[in-house]
Amino acid sequence: MRNIQINGARLWGSLMEMARIGATAKGGVKRLTLTDLDRRSRDLFIRWAKESGCSVSVDGIGNIFARREGRDPGRAPVMSGSHLDSQPSGGKFDGAYGVLAALEIIRTLNDAAVETQAPVEICVWTNEEGARFAPAMMGSGAFSGALDVETLRAATDPDGLTLGAELERIGYRGEAPVGGRPIGAYFEAHIEQGPILEAEHKTIGVVTGGQGIRWYDVRLSGQDAHAGPTPMDRRRDALLAAARLTVAINAIGLEHHPDGRCTVGTARVLPNSRNVIPGHVEMSVDLRHPLARPLAAMARSLETACRDIQVDSGVAIELEEIWAYPPQAFDPGCIDAVRQAAQACGYSHQDIVSGAGHDAVYVSAIAPTGMVFIPCEGGISHNEIENITADDAEAGCNVLLHALLDRAE
Amino acid sequence: MRNIQINGARLWGSLMEMARIGATAKGGVKRLTLTDLDRRSRDLFIRWAKESGCSVSVDGIGNIFARREGRDPGRAPVMSGSHLDSQPSGGKFDGAYGVLAALEIIRTLNDAAVETQAPVEICVWTNEEGARFAPAMMGSGAFSGALDVETLRAATDPDGLTLGAELERIGYRGEAPVGGRPIGAYFEAHIEQGPILEAEHKTIGVVTGGQGIRWYDVRLSGQDAHAGPTPMDRRRDALLAAARLTVAINAIGLEHHPDGRCTVGTARVLPNSRNVIPGHVEMSVDLRHPLARPLAAMARSLETACRDIQVDSGVAIELEEIWAYPPQAFDPGCIDAVRQAAQACGYSHQDIVSGAGHDAVYVSAIAPTGMVFIPCEGGISHNEIENITADDAEAGCNVLLHALLDRAE
Repeated sequence: MRNIQINGARLWGSLMEMARIGATAKGGVKRLTLTDLDRRSRDLFIRWAKESGCSVSVDGIGNIFARREGRDPGRAPVMSGSHLDSQPSGGKFDGAYGVLAALEIIRTLNDAAVETQAPVEICVWTNEEGARFAPAMMGSGAFSGALDVETLRAATDPDGLTLGAELERIGYRGEAPVGGRPIGAYFEAHIEQGPILEAEHKTIGVVTGGQGIRWYDVRLSGQDAHAGPTPMDRRRDALLAAARLTVAINAIGLEHHPDGRCTVGTARVLPNSRNVIPGHVEMSVDLRHPLARPLAAMARSLETACRDIQVDSGVAIELEEIWAYPPQAFDPGCIDAVRQAAQACGYSHQDIVSGAGHDAVYVSAIAPTGMVFIPCEGGISHNEIENITADDAEAGCNVLLHALLDRAE
Repeated sequence: MRNIQINGARLWGSLMEMARIGATAKGGVKRLTLTDLDRRSRDLFIRWAKESGCSVSVDGIGNIFARREGRDPGRAPVMSGSHLDSQPSGGKFDGAYGVLAALEIIRTLNDAAVETQAPVEICVWTNEEGARFAPAMMGSGAFSGALDVETLRAATDPDGLTLGAELERIGYRGEAPVGGRPIGAYFEAHIEQGPILEAEHKTIGVVTGGQGIRWYDVRLSGQDAHAGPTPMDRRRDALLAAARLTVAINAIGLEHHPDGRCTVGTARVLPNSRNVIPGHVEMSVDLRHPLARPLAAMARSLETACRDIQVDSGVAIELEEIWAYPPQAFDPGCIDAVRQAAQACGYSHQDIVSGAGHDAVYVSAIAPTGMVFIPCEGGISHNEIENITADDAEAGCNVLLHALLDRAE
């Protein structure tokens, strides 16, 4: 089976067909979780999986499992997959690449009439992005037991709709229990979403683990006042305090270069009137590091920055940690299977830490896990211009295939 | 005449009676310009003015002039007034105080049988607030020649009704020409709408002029990217650039302390997702200064800050000036008349610059002008909780009386 290869053109064709669902004018996709567009992408995947002979089940949080039977149905399956939901102005490959690479492997095994010892399953995890309902990676988080299903079903989007109601509305609240499904090994192929592989001219990233992530909501409360009569030194300007905090948060990231990441992604200003000093701002903070100790130091620096700016500005700053996700090392056997597969296929490769959260990180808590990264153009993701080459897509899928086969025997 | 004093209880009673027209549950008023409520407030004012022996005329934009004759009818009148319209959730005193203080002066002169050399006129300017029809200060702007009457009559409210039609509907499109009426001196009493007098424990603000205002829209364009994998030194974070610019704009205000004002009142972040480095931000800038030269310097500093941050961050910054309103110094003689009156009445006072726009600023382009400010509670205005004390109302009216008498002789 060393010479078996996936069909790169077919993989690319499936990626392009999936990308038509929620396609945006700039070449990306907007396919927020549990919308009608998400339903269409799920329906298409299930049609393809069934056409490839898979049996399909859906669990109570909407995770989809498509199973190709093995010689030994009693063995825990080797699983691969990712997600089909996107950011509001997302790209064509984030998530969809991992799902369709796994599908391409099933198709390739069918074409070559390969029967694996263990069953092979493809999974599609619900709400990986967290763009419509927080937190992110809900499906894999619930599956792994890290997140509570009932709490997730009660999560609301900005229009006040609950995740549970939206799951039912699109017909993807399934009968299967959430979690408890055996997994022999889990592999996820994904675009890097960072610039390293491209900069290092490497085709394959052998992912050794995932960054820890801490998410915060910050509420700043000063005093609305008229922009004209109110002197600079008598203001309690919540937007100015938010701006200072944003600059301080960026500095924390720079202090932890090259592995630390600090981002303010959202801000809401009230009353948001041109000639009124803003009295209230709400903003989000995202801290990441691959090691627990520096991540904790970054969190302490954030708390200090909030306190200092509060004292200095007279603006009350409330910092609430809403989600934390520890750094996670992947399984040495799975990491090695990916490395050996890249080597055997003749692709340049290097070890890399995942900067983004991935479903694989939750799964790694309950099953041996590895990931395969491929380069993305300019390191750009969560953007409509996100791009990869067909050659890299094919290479990553071949590596995924051989790592899977290694574990399925 | 040094000892003549206005009747504070009568003034307060008139304020409270006027405040019943359009009264809101929270103690404010909603009396948008040219509504039926505005007509009722105008009708009440005219009834009171006629009961005080005034002759009344209305011009083509709805400005009302109530005249008490002087010993020399050929002399240009000394004029005082303000406006009766309010914000949608406005206070009882913004505008109404200036109109009813002028009325109280006529009543006081009648009681004391004082005949002034010059006639005394009260004016009520149309649509000072600009809340229903833009721009603000239409009546005084048209009267002074700064705004075109036909353009203003064509202005539409959010329901598509024109100002001209609404003027006719409420019966306040008058016969008198707009502008050309001689004014010997103009004084306007107004609540400060800022916190300075209260903080400084001063009863009277001797207003030396109005701030110049420059309004900008700023558009920042960087690159959306994933918050996890993208290293700190490879980001083009539009929100970080906006934060730096907000801090820089505040610093420009502080450099021009105590008279400069720099405010970022609005910000909109795109895509506004917790784990995406924001690629786009739109924000507003409001710069104010009472003098033209420092205001121009502030504008140049803003341009420089935009250029510097653009170069440093790789985020493109587009700065567009959307409105400008030059600083206006009031007449030294009128300023001195207000200061002398405060002194003679024994009230604590200080010079102050008007941060908000006022009809007096337009009038000052065509006639010697001064203003009298009184404190308002917490500096809060354009709010139903706007409040003043009866003592301060009386003090401001006494100062207005003596400044007027000084100029009427």
